This record gives sequence, C-alpha cells and structure tokens, in this order.
Amino acid sequence: MKQYSIVLALSLTLISSLMTAQTASSKIIEDFKPSVLNQPGKEFPQVNSQGYARFRIEAPAADSIIVSLGLGGKKGGTKLSKGADGVWTGTTAGPMDEGFHYYHVNVDGGTFNDPGALNFYGSVRWESGIEIPAHDQDFYALKSVAHGNVQQILFPSKSTNTSRRAFVYTPPGYEKEQSKRYPVLYLQHGWGEDETAWSNQGHANLIMDNLIAEEKIKPFIIVMTYGMTNEIKFGGLKNFDITPFQTVMVDELIPYVDANFRTVAKQSYRAMAGLSMGGMETRMITLKKTDVFSHYALLSGGLYNPEDIKDKSKVKLIFLSCGSKENPDGVKKSATALKNAGFNAVSYVSEGTAHEFQTWRRSLKELAPLLFKE
Amino acid sequence: MKQYSIVLALSLTLISSLMTAQTASSKIIEDFKPSVLNQPGKEFPQVNSQGYARFRIEAPAADSIIVSLGLGGKKGGTKLSKGADGVWTGTTAGPMDEGFHYYHVNVDGGTFNDPGALNFYGSVRWESGIEIPAHDQDFYALKSVAHGNVQQILFPSKSTNTSRRAFVYTPPGYEKEQSKRYPVLYLQHGWGEDETAWSNQGHANLIMDNLIAEEKIKPFIIVMTYGMTNEIKFGGLKNFDITPFQTVMVDELIPYVDANFRTVAKQSYRAMAGLSMGGMETRMITLKKTDVFSHYALLSGGLYNPEDIKDKSKVKLIFLSCGSKENPDGVKKSATALKNAGFNAVSYVSEGTAHEFQTWRRSLKELAPLLFKE
Repeated sequence: MKQYSIVLALSLTLISSLMTAQTASSKIIEDFKPSVLNQPGKEFPQVNSQGYARFRIEAPAADSIIVSLGLGGKKGGTKLSKGADGVWTGTTAGPMDEGFHYYHVNVDGGTFNDPGALNFYGSVRWESGIEIPAHDQDFYALKSVAHGNVQQILFPSKSTNTSRRAFVYTPPGYEKEQSKRYPVLYLQHGWGEDETAWSNQGHANLIMDNLIAEEKIKPFIIVMTYGMTNEIKFGGLKNFDITPFQTVMVDELIPYVDANFRTVAKQSYRAMAGLSMGGMETRMITLKKTDVFSHYALLSGGLYNPEDIKDKSKVKLIFLSCGSKENPDGVKKSATALKNAGFNAVSYVSEGTAHEFQTWRRSLKELAPLLFKE
Repeated sequence: MKQYSIVLALSLTLISSLMTAQTASSKIIEDFKPSVLNQPGKEFPQVNSQGYARFRIEAPAADSIIVSLGLGGKKGGTKLSKGADGVWTGTTAGPMDEGFHYYHVNVDGGTFNDPGALNFYGSVRWESGIEIPAHDQDFYALKSVAHGNVQQILFPSKSTNTSRRAFVYTPPGYEKEQSKRYPVLYLQHGWGEDETAWSNQGHANLIMDNLIAEEKIKPFIIVMTYGMTNEIKFGGLKNFDITPFQTVMVDELIPYVDANFRTVAKQSYRAMAGLSMGGMETRMITLKKTDVFSHYALLSGGLYNPEDIKDKSKVKLIFLSCGSKENPDGVKKSATALKNAGFNAVSYVSEGTAHEFQTWRRSLKELAPLLFKE
C-alpha cells in the first residue's frame, strides 16, 4: 500500500495534462469572452459559458499551429486553421473542465507560449494558462474584503549553500495585531511547479482572505517553498530521496519562519499539505517528523495507512482529497480505514475535476476550516 | 523646458529597445554560458565574456526565426539559421550593453517568447529577458547577507473601484524590531512595465539588502505599484493625465501603507522616484503634492527646472540620472542649475548603458545613500 500511494502519485502526475473525454455539445454558444488570465489588453484566448476555449494566434508564414489543450477525443490538442488574413484560430472540440489549465502552443514543431496568455510555472517550464469560469469561482475571487499579504522571503540554506525563496501568506491584521501569534500551514506544489504555484494558479491568498472575511476560519500563516530540491527528471520519482528537501523544510525553513514571523512554534499548531508530488513529500516528511507537524493533508497526493503511523496521539488531522475524475474511491476508503483506526480523518472529492488546480483550490477551501481547532 | 522634459521622456521611451551601434570584435570568444535569467535547466540563450548573446530555438518546420535583440548595424535583430538537425541558432553581430535586456522572437511572422528564457513584463507584454554579465554585477547579486522581504499587498482603491496590487520591500529586521519606524521610497516603473519590474528586472530588493549589509544606507521601505492607471497607448503620453494615478498614489496607496506598515508618516521621510515614464509621473506628482514628498528622483525620466518648484524649503533632495548613451549633458546641466538655485541636487550618469535597467539598477544604488539623511 505504501508502494501503491507512491505509484499513484507518480501516475497521477503523468496524466496531469490529459483530459477526460466529454460529449461535445451540439451547439457552441457564441458568448466568448477573454480569459481572465490573459495578458493586459489581450482579446484571446477566449472562453464561453459552456467551457469551450477559443484561440487566435498571428503567425502568417507558419505551416502548422497546434494548441496542447483539447479533449480526450482529440488527444493531440486543438489544431488551429489559418484564415485568409494569415491569422490562426480554433476552438476546443468540447467544453473543458472548470478552473485553471496549463497549455502551450506548437508552432511548426517548436514549443512556444500563447502570446495572449499569462505564464504559470508547471511541467518544469513557464506554460500558458487559461481559466474556465467555474460555478463556484466566488470562493477564490478578488473581493472587496481585507487582504492578507504574500511575502517573498529569502532564507539561508546551509545544506544547499544558497539563499532559498519561499512565499509567506500573512493574514489581514497581521501587521497591526503585534502581540498575536499564528499557526502555520506549510503548503507544497506539485511536480514541475514551484513556490509560485499556490499563489498564482491556486489563489491560496484569496481563498484565505475570503474564508477569513466570512469568519469561516481563524487566521493562520501559509508558507510555500520549492520542493524539487534534488533534480527530479520526468518519471524519476521512483528513486526520489526525501532527505534533501526534508532538511531544507524542517532544519532551515521552519526555524527561519519561527524566528522571523509571529508563529505559534509548536507541533500542535503546525500543518503540512501538498498537492500531487507535494503530497508524496508531505506524507514522507510527516511520517518521519512526528514531532514537527500535527495536521497532514494530501491533495491528489497519495494516502496514509493506519499502520504507517506509529504514535496516534501526535496526529490531530489527516485530510485526503482528489478530483472525482481521479481516484475518489481510494481516497474515501483510506479515510474510512483511518477513522476506523481512531484517527480524525476527513476525505473530500472535488466534483467534475481531474488532477488540476480547481481540485486543489477546492481542497484548500475544505481543509482550512479543519485546521488548528482547539 | 517643461515641454522638453516630457518630450524627452517620450522619445527615450520610443527608442528604449534600440541599441547603439558598436564595432564588432574581430573574434568571438567561445566561453558562452547560459544566461542567469534562463528557465530552470535551460541551456539557451547563452552569453559570453565579451557580451555576445547566442540563441538556440527548436522549430524544425519554421521558415524564419528572428530574435529582436541585435545591434545598431542589424536593426532587424538577429536572424537565426536552421541547422541540419532542424534547430535554429544565431549570435548577435556584436557585444550587447551590460545588464538586462528585453526581447522576443519572431517565428514565421508571429511574436513569441524564447522558450529558454524567463519572462519579464515590458512593452505591455511579458517579454523574454536576458542578462549580460556586468563588471559591477556584485551590487545586485544574491549574497549570503540578511534579506528583506518583498510583500504583495492588495490595497482598496475607491477611485478605480477595485483592490490594486503593490509590492512592498521591507528591510531585514523589519519583523523583529517592532518598535522601529521606517522612511518610505515610492518607486515607479516605466511605460509598458508594471509593479513587478523593480523587483524582477531591477533587483531592487537585493540592491537594498547589499547596501544595508555593507552599512552604506539606513534601512527604508520601498513601495512599488502600477503606474499606468489610465490606459496609455503607444505614443499617447502627450495627452497623459496624471490625475487618476495621483489619486491612487496619494489618496489611496500612501494612507494604506502608513496604516499597515511601520512608516514614518511625514513628508520629510517620504521620497518618490521613477524611471522613464515613472519619472514623468514622479515629476508631475512631486511638483503638485509638495506636502507629501520631500525627496525626488527622475531616472532617465526628465528634468526639473528651478523655477518649477514654488517652495524650495520643502525639497530635501533632487536626484537626476540617465545612461551615458542617453542625455547625460541634459541631466548634468539641470542638476547644476538646481544647485545654483540653492537646491540639494545630484546627478548621476551610468557609464556605457542606455535606456535600460542597468542604468536604473545603478541609479537606485547611487540614490539610496542620499535619501532620508538627518
């Protein structure tokens, strides 16, 4: 089972950019609007109310342009067609899943980005990003509420002989309430992503701001750093060694955060969570460092077995989640087994989403209210 | 003269991507290394010790690839050639100026980014960036010193009916010394850039960290926000109205920063500086809002005339700078005229650089020690 969860994380990673086939709607509604993740002033890519994506790229002398986004039936993505004006356009064969998708553009055999879209780090490159409006997008919207800050910190790392970067979300009021101390969630990205992912793609800061404004959670700090400390080549997770990253996280980052931010520097007020490969790392580190973390969360990132955990009294919460298009039964069964063994375990399945950021945005929203309860 | 400085800022903006012609060295030294601004693991683009840049882009079926970077003699940029392996390569016709350069890639008539390089916001798009090692690059290097943080804040803006983004540099020790208050420099980007420019392209945070570590300056806060509040189309600066941005800056951002950070909320401890168009904005706002700012700095961004300033007693410093390939005589003459009129005016000319970020990194390094002196 231990082996299984690693293989699961690996295979989920491998299929992360593939979409499940859907039946194309008979008629495309012509209410396309620019994606909210476009570069300033750019009209394309566009999305419509059904979730179709439409692309428009200028390259009059090109022979072929293929967008990597598409649906199961068109595995190769969406082939654009050149118009009489030399401009290439095309629409996905069907509606896309709600939420954020990475993509890129193949121009005459080369891999480029869509010049209309903003860039997001995933698949070990800065990819183009597009946002399909979701029915529940309100929970990560930028609203007129008090906002926390996302701070870039550079912390010393002896083990890697450099200053390493992390981002720290401090909740609204952190600057003013100078006697207050806060619990901390250490939140990891997935394979091929970096410490920018949870803010840029995940809107973790806006999810927190909104939950705090609605008084659904007590404020806490989130720390996000780079988890691919040893070079991980594609498919190389099998031989993954957690030690270098564990050293950075536990021996270097946590002491720096506890020394420089007003944290409650106790195991019972420290959580670790991660998506996909970050879940694999969370699982490995939490099982080894039982005196460091008390709340564990794997988002599309594997499972815990009751017998993996030596001292039940040290674990305050285990949260397991995934998209309904991933492995919901595995997640639910694991949570049930943990509950039967006396753990405070919770499972969550994101409806209609796969191994993508909409699953993880929703997972964070579900996880946050369960953390650091008295 | 007032008119002249605006026209200057405008024309400098227009020529910002053009390079001055240089004599190509007779022999290219084959010590090319990946640019430090490449995406993780990417071998190209590369730079050599002379300042040549070499590009390598895969697009086997393309008919033409031209990199926008080049030298005066090759105004169209650097044309790449396709090898037998279908890979396009090319080297600039001569050495580039030291420091950071924006560029993009024309593939078969379309504008794309170099898939090997990181992206930086300039020219109203996310451009590719390349770094030519400079003889003085040590002052903006990431070193093993105490580091300040760069915080993303979202501040409420009634005038634009949204939450607006700014980045706030807080110096090392800001979190720990909770009774200390700090002066603030409001630092603006240029035309087509945004609030990310001074950190990403300018390394403002590292420049400050290093100056503080060397005890060359007393710590202060830097605030950077988006200055193109009203849509500015290319060449439209002539009809530029400062009012919308001035409202955001003076009536919304400054009160938010003073309420949420430990600032010295006084005119004498508040500076404004800007590069290029940001200098034009700085000039307009400082002349109008004499009770808000006491230190003014225009980096390749125009000049002040003594007669423009009504109350000399309110101005503590005027700093004017540019690259030696811009208008150094104008900058020097203006500073001299200001000094003759009794102002504390300083000019600085960056040797061997044009209207680019190396000029502005150096200008910030020269400006910082002059600010907020008792």
